[in-house]
Amino acid sequence: MNYQPRPDDVRLLLDTVLGAAPRLRALAPFAEFDETLQAQVLDEAGRFVAEVVAPLNRAGDEIGCRFEGGAVTTPPGFREAYRGLADGGWLALSAASEHGGQALPAVLEAVLFEWLNAANHGFTMAPALLHGAYECLRHHGSPDLHERYLSKIASGESLATMCLTEAHAGSDLGQVRTRAVPHPDGSVRVSGGKIFISGGEHDLTPNIVHLVLCRLPEAPPGPKGLSLALVPKLLPDGARNAAHCERIEEKMGLHGSPTCVMRFDEATGWLVGEPHRGLAAMFVMMNAARLHVALQAIGLLDAAWQKADAYAAERRQMRAPGPAPASRGAEAADLIGEHPAIRRILQTQRAWIDGMRLLAYRSALQLDVARHDADPARRQRAERWCALVTPVLKAACTQQAFDGASACLQVFGGHGYVREWGIEQVVRDARITMIYEGTNEIQAIDLVQRKLLPDGGAGMAAVLIELRDELDASREQDADVQRRFAQLRYLGTTLLQAAQRDPSLPFEVADDYLRTVALAMLAWSWARIAQTAPDDARWRAPAAAFQRFVLPEFEMRLGMVKRACDAVLVPPPAASAEAN
Amino acid sequence: MNYQPRPDDVRLLLDTVLGAAPRLRALAPFAEFDETLQAQVLDEAGRFVAEVVAPLNRAGDEIGCRFEGGAVTTPPGFREAYRGLADGGWLALSAASEHGGQALPAVLEAVLFEWLNAANHGFTMAPALLHGAYECLRHHGSPDLHERYLSKIASGESLATMCLTEAHAGSDLGQVRTRAVPHPDGSVRVSGGKIFISGGEHDLTPNIVHLVLCRLPEAPPGPKGLSLALVPKLLPDGARNAAHCERIEEKMGLHGSPTCVMRFDEATGWLVGEPHRGLAAMFVMMNAARLHVALQAIGLLDAAWQKADAYAAERRQMRAPGPAPASRGAEAADLIGEHPAIRRILQTQRAWIDGMRLLAYRSALQLDVARHDADPARRQRAERWCALVTPVLKAACTQQAFDGASACLQVFGGHGYVREWGIEQVVRDARITMIYEGTNEIQAIDLVQRKLLPDGGAGMAAVLIELRDELDASREQDADVQRRFAQLRYLGTTLLQAAQRDPSLPFEVADDYLRTVALAMLAWSWARIAQTAPDDARWRAPAAAFQRFVLPEFEMRLGMVKRACDAVLVPPPAASAEAN
Repeated sequence: MNYQPRPDDVRLLLDTVLGAAPRLRALAPFAEFDETLQAQVLDEAGRFVAEVVAPLNRAGDEIGCRFEGGAVTTPPGFREAYRGLADGGWLALSAASEHGGQALPAVLEAVLFEWLNAANHGFTMAPALLHGAYECLRHHGSPDLHERYLSKIASGESLATMCLTEAHAGSDLGQVRTRAVPHPDGSVRVSGGKIFISGGEHDLTPNIVHLVLCRLPEAPPGPKGLSLALVPKLLPDGARNAAHCERIEEKMGLHGSPTCVMRFDEATGWLVGEPHRGLAAMFVMMNAARLHVALQAIGLLDAAWQKADAYAAERRQMRAPGPAPASRGAEAADLIGEHPAIRRILQTQRAWIDGMRLLAYRSALQLDVARHDADPARRQRAERWCALVTPVLKAACTQQAFDGASACLQVFGGHGYVREWGIEQVVRDARITMIYEGTNEIQAIDLVQRKLLPDGGAGMAAVLIELRDELDASREQDADVQRRFAQLRYLGTTLLQAAQRDPSLPFEVADDYLRTVALAMLAWSWARIAQTAPDDARWRAPAAAFQRFVLPEFEMRLGMVKRACDAVLVPPPAASAEAN
Repeated sequence: MNYQPRPDDVRLLLDTVLGAAPRLRALAPFAEFDETLQAQVLDEAGRFVAEVVAPLNRAGDEIGCRFEGGAVTTPPGFREAYRGLADGGWLALSAASEHGGQALPAVLEAVLFEWLNAANHGFTMAPALLHGAYECLRHHGSPDLHERYLSKIASGESLATMCLTEAHAGSDLGQVRTRAVPHPDGSVRVSGGKIFISGGEHDLTPNIVHLVLCRLPEAPPGPKGLSLALVPKLLPDGARNAAHCERIEEKMGLHGSPTCVMRFDEATGWLVGEPHRGLAAMFVMMNAARLHVALQAIGLLDAAWQKADAYAAERRQMRAPGPAPASRGAEAADLIGEHPAIRRILQTQRAWIDGMRLLAYRSALQLDVARHDADPARRQRAERWCALVTPVLKAACTQQAFDGASACLQVFGGHGYVREWGIEQVVRDARITMIYEGTNEIQAIDLVQRKLLPDGGAGMAAVLIELRDELDASREQDADVQRRFAQLRYLGTTLLQAAQRDPSLPFEVADDYLRTVALAMLAWSWARIAQTAPDDARWRAPAAAFQRFVLPEFEMRLGMVKRACDAVLVPPPAASAEAN
């Protein structure tokens, strides 16, 4: 079965739990925004995704992209679907109207891209890079580059890439060697090799705009010597630039997206932003891009869940324990969905999807606030939220997308391991999300080393207080979440002290700390949903599964971090005492 | 890199920790067995695996098996390697000498097959079915079938299959519909379709012996009406039997092994064992087959670990925190193996591999005892061990093979997601082990419903006492394991009580209960290794990682089972009291 967006699930979170529309109306550009407009956009988006994009997912995997003579042919139907996406204005949903955009909130774009990814991850890779390129160029590009490229990127007339990684420089971008030599006419000549370039070459748009991390002559070594250059595939006069795809990678999954090895041979480009400030220019889009990966992950897990849920409602094997389920009828065997082991898988994954969605949508709303609020203090608070919560969501959602898709595969038994049902594709596709846009280990280190420790835990405390204020302490579940937040703040203090004694320690416990934060925030999600969601099985079952099967990891991770800190803070008993 | 067996790692567990050779010498057939013979066999096996089998793994995945006109062509080199395996006597390692076997202990065969699977899972699938077929036929086949097939199966001159699953009957074999109609000459005519038949057709051996689960006319419905028939591809007169492969599956991985859809059209066969007692005939080999899957999983995880370990020792990215590592030298970036996040992954997976290996080898030794001990009480104890520990190992090892291989993939960053390094193949191949030979959910239910509860926990208690007696309570680590065993026994009692109130409950907590047992047993492994292993980084690092990163899950799972039981055993406070 193909992915089917379910706007009702999303609306409950956006409207009932988050009150998105009134919050958005407080921002000048969205003064007219209301639930009706939101519903229209989501319904139409859902239809487009279901009817046009989702049916191409299987061919994207099985036929994949073909590379021949430097050109990439995308899978059957991708060109037409991309045309529909661009022509329908979907790519310019949140772009400014002066660049031809629809100036709608980022949170709607978040939902759209979650669905697109759920329906067809490979197809969505190239278009998903547009928003980052748009924001980057908008903030750092010269008026001349704006004039030539901004509207084209906003609308999707040209697609864009991010050319960062080199064979020897992955997580460590400071090692980038690609050179940019200034030319008398103000342009640069870019030379070097890049790898893992999603959409580096394809047949979706005539032109492709590469944003290339490179090094000017005499640039200081390391990350502070990196510049960013815009290198188009076709030059303004229509001539072919010296930016070429050498081959595409054979990958575990994501076959619908060409992952290109790129070669720049004195290709013509123009600097974006200041010399040696290339990383800063790119970091503009970092939080949005990482949130996007979290949304990919949520979408993929929902896609896996839909498949498993449908299969569990039609496949019969053995009698389920306990009283006869209504679905038994005259059948000798029960639906596998009636078996506790299968029910547990489905409800647990549902708990992750709904809980993470709420946090991801709340983050997307904060992106809107950070961009548009009139009050600098509120903008700053929103930015703080994004800085702290984005790495948590990126790592936790993508880990769960892979683990949860694998759990959903398990629902199919042997049928899950063969191509037929498409579930194994989701597992293969999802695996990359744990790696790109900064591996999950890098996210955890970012959270602890750059976000938690430098301000002594103040930012994290502020985020937790903000969340706490939306809880109702008179409810037992909410009070439980508040207790966990208190434990988390205390843990931060302990970690701070331990890090002073042993600066390596935060690196050792970063993964566990991130999980602790993620699980506490998910507990917040489910407390908020419990306050407002209808009291029916749709929401009650995952709520119960969350408490029973997901939340216990919180104590485990908390204990792991605490013990590691204690080992540094509390000196072990003297060896002689132990010997006695 | 290709997998490289490391006999030293294995010998430490077999000799130093388990004292395998003296234990084996106590069994009549192995009275002459000693460490020298063991070392010779392992060294030779290691060479064969490394030189002949491992180099074919990549082609097995990339080229895979081809199906054309009913015939299956295995990947390049597989035929020659199979010939070497059979000619070298490796397939008949533990078979009886009267059938041309080498009459060596099952525990050596276990090590051989762990290595074969690590080196080339796809290649090893078909040969791995021989032992089960041999044992099944040996115990249940008529003298006539022995005469015709037993030596051929022992030596690998003919390969064998297990034809169980049908499209509608997977975990629920009671639904099998394939028919067997008696023929006046004492044979049967078998008709029906089977799916997921590993090695159902191939070019490795001229003949293939299918063991087919089927139903005689007027057989009772359900599992008690199943019979087992031997259906050869070639009849004794050399004619082609009506047993045909209709297609092979497209799978997530394991492309080196043809997974066949089989069609039997009044194919000639002969019953193995009594009519309607087909499941019993097959259950003979169940524990050995499931232990084999656990060994596959251990092998695959070791293969993933070797790749990641090698990569971490050559790839440099960023400076590691803490004091400069010796490997830094004049380099700007450190080896990624010096980074805490990568070190953690490698040491944690090593902890799983070594700990599980010890348990798996101990189980294989118990298979030898169960088969050969002169004392019926000791045989029975060994059988009890196998019955209880096998589902635990099957589920825990295979889950870890997949999760751990994925963690090893993460070490490579983006390079792990592309084919080049072969690590993504391990992840794809490993996924099936969680499904076949009974899904991991079925293993957990088997453990709780069939092994733990029926005797009131007595068998489990006996196994734990046996393990406890090998600990040294004067050591703090050993005492800690004993405490966990005590918790486990108490948990069993609680579960027993709760199951009386709510018979569905064991099904709901079976997965968590199994994990609790697995982790306690792994803790035993590491206590035993700590008693005896050399005090060097090779063993100290995974020992520490086990305590820090693996064992905390024990308390988490224990708590999950306990709370579920308490919810049944302790009535919730009255609603009115809560309202106050």
